Amino acid sequence: MRSFFKVKTAGNIFESLKDIEPLGTEFVPITAAFNRVLARDIVSDEDLPGFKRSTMDGYALAARDSFGASENLPTPLNIVEEIKMGEVPRSALHRGECAQISTGGMLPEGADAIVMVEYTQKVEDRVVEISRPVSPLENVILPDDDVKKGQAVLHKGSLLRPQDLGILAGLGISIVDVFIQPKAAIISTGEEIVDISKKPEAGQMRDMNSYTLGGLCLQLGVEPIYCGIIKDKFEDITLFIEKGLSQADVVLLSGGSSVGVKDFTLDAILSLNGVEVVAHGVSISPGKPTIIARKGNKTLWGLPGHPVSAMIIFDIFLRYLFGRLMGLTNLTEYHSRTIEAEIDRNIESATGREDYIRVKLSHIEGRWLATPILGKSGLISTMVEADGIVTIDMNTEGLYKGELVTVRLF
Amino acid sequence: MRSFFKVKTAGNIFESLKDIEPLGTEFVPITAAFNRVLARDIVSDEDLPGFKRSTMDGYALAARDSFGASENLPTPLNIVEEIKMGEVPRSALHRGECAQISTGGMLPEGADAIVMVEYTQKVEDRVVEISRPVSPLENVILPDDDVKKGQAVLHKGSLLRPQDLGILAGLGISIVDVFIQPKAAIISTGEEIVDISKKPEAGQMRDMNSYTLGGLCLQLGVEPIYCGIIKDKFEDITLFIEKGLSQADVVLLSGGSSVGVKDFTLDAILSLNGVEVVAHGVSISPGKPTIIARKGNKTLWGLPGHPVSAMIIFDIFLRYLFGRLMGLTNLTEYHSRTIEAEIDRNIESATGREDYIRVKLSHIEGRWLATPILGKSGLISTMVEADGIVTIDMNTEGLYKGELVTVRLF
Repeated sequence: MRSFFKVKTAGNIFESLKDIEPLGTEFVPITAAFNRVLARDIVSDEDLPGFKRSTMDGYALAARDSFGASENLPTPLNIVEEIKMGEVPRSALHRGECAQISTGGMLPEGADAIVMVEYTQKVEDRVVEISRPVSPLENVILPDDDVKKGQAVLHKGSLLRPQDLGILAGLGISIVDVFIQPKAAIISTGEEIVDISKKPEAGQMRDMNSYTLGGLCLQLGVEPIYCGIIKDKFEDITLFIEKGLSQADVVLLSGGSSVGVKDFTLDAILSLNGVEVVAHGVSISPGKPTIIARKGNKTLWGLPGHPVSAMIIFDIFLRYLFGRLMGLTNLTEYHSRTIEAEIDRNIESATGREDYIRVKLSHIEGRWLATPILGKSGLISTMVEADGIVTIDMNTEGLYKGELVTVRLF
Repeated sequence: MRSFFKVKTAGNIFESLKDIEPLGTEFVPITAAFNRVLARDIVSDEDLPGFKRSTMDGYALAARDSFGASENLPTPLNIVEEIKMGEVPRSALHRGECAQISTGGMLPEGADAIVMVEYTQKVEDRVVEISRPVSPLENVILPDDDVKKGQAVLHKGSLLRPQDLGILAGLGISIVDVFIQPKAAIISTGEEIVDISKKPEAGQMRDMNSYTLGGLCLQLGVEPIYCGIIKDKFEDITLFIEKGLSQADVVLLSGGSSVGVKDFTLDAILSLNGVEVVAHGVSISPGKPTIIARKGNKTLWGLPGHPVSAMIIFDIFLRYLFGRLMGLTNLTEYHSRTIEAEIDRNIESATGREDYIRVKLSHIEGRWLATPILGKSGLISTMVEADGIVTIDMNTEGLYKGELVTVRLF
């Protein structure tokens, strides 16, 4: 059996992934742009809304014409027109004139404020009384209040939210330049692993990792390519890795974890042209038996066979890697939710490795409590029970009951 | 102009939506089940893993055979076989015997523990020396450690996470019974609204609400049906509402907000058989001019034309409504992320209505600060700038600088 020969810390691994480049860009219709990453800054070439707009139903007027108006002494104004929605007012206002207007309507020349309909009373067909003064610009949106011509409204590398789609629409950008989404080839290996449609014999297990890893990909907007299960043969593993690297940006091979498989995966990787081993073993628990290799901008991950370990390695490194591949500027903000909680028992941890503790949350008297779930990393049920993960860093010997920790939620 | 006649509080509206029933159920392959809502409890009809399994590479043995072993005085054991992955061991162990085993391998009869390969030394072809004692069950997963036969592992109404897909796979459930996802028909109205492919004339605006609302739907897993823009005509609005109600579970009509449109929407709703008005006006700011109507389990929303107001009404009520339609048991946990922050200036608020304040977050010296963004609700840029929303409830007159608030993140 070959021993681990390139055990790396999490820091080493992030360092060796930091020159991974974003994939190319593509144009998508705005209806397909939600949650995609913008590939260039959006600079407006027009003012929005582009005209003086009412924010209320009422009367457009020159504010000075309302000064002194009160309920006891309302100011009468002549109504010169009813401004039609979506149209330019027919005439400018003169002293003592106003125009009926709806929310979103365009103010006529000479008007600088809107008095709400609630503070008016129509006394004749063409005359309205104003019972409250308005200030200049009251209930008015100026032509460049929303967006100014030349303003950078959205930035390259940001994830498009619903409101961002709104501003793109407002500026008439119906086709959006976004980064291409990564693809991940997912392969399970192991003589003991059978397809989920089969009844396992004694000693066999159904393939879980394909589906947990597929779900994690989908959560990030990464397209999973399910490649199925391969047996522990050097030739088969080599073939699948080569195919995976040609079809996808990332190859996720999760091990049957047997001694044989580990050797074959490593041997297969070492036999491929241009593939360089980044790490063989990671100082993280659970998740140590991980192999990471690179071929240019593509990476290959020999993940542990234990489903919990594979998920944790994904959560730490692949979340980051996919963020880089999809051109995200802020790699932490959108892809993980955290909560502060008190750990509710002491946890020991070895120094020299990072420990990832599964926790269940409960909300008691306004405080969040995090209860560690201590089952083995071969038990998927411990992840089902868990609400999140707490990290104990390399130089910490453990956590004391009552200590505040950051829980990364699933 | 018709005045508001059925202004309701947020509480009234939740009350009138609480008998909305989940849609039907459907079977989907496990690869399409991520983020879907489970339609029934999953009770395991088998133990998982179903056999005694090793969690390490090493030797299977009876723990008592290792008692007393040390580096100075290692215990020699006879290796009776190398257990093949995925196969049943050929023979039971007797006193003084062990079997070579890999992670995930099946323990032979007579073995109750695994000694890790690191604590062994092979001295002959068929003899290994053990240099450390192991306890019974050390490095072993029992047949029902992960899941016990008859155990409810997942519950109806829960959103399927990656690890939940893993446990379904482990149990051989390749087709999953989930709730049907809702559909929302999205319609923009207003004489001043033009399609985003058009250059607006003075007084016109491009349609933003279709895309902000579409994005909000996609965020929740709701399918948006983009119906385009209709003009302010009673007949057209009636036709679109009828079509929308037949095609979708929810109709989202966002208003040009003009006086005319409001009348037509309400008149159209009132003219339809079996449609009942739930609210005409909501005591929420922004978002007051909202019309809500029901036809059985379907609902129709006349949302404000201002994009910020429409988004806030969606965030409060439609997030909840869609959660009910998709059968989610826990309506808050997954669909919104929150953070505690200090508000960094005083905010006034009228009693008798709920105020929703857009805020921008900054992280300064370990504390989150929430800075209110006070622009008009007609300005989409204020939502682009914002990171989340703070609610000031009906009975609060405002917030003081430094007060802790819960920010609902976008």
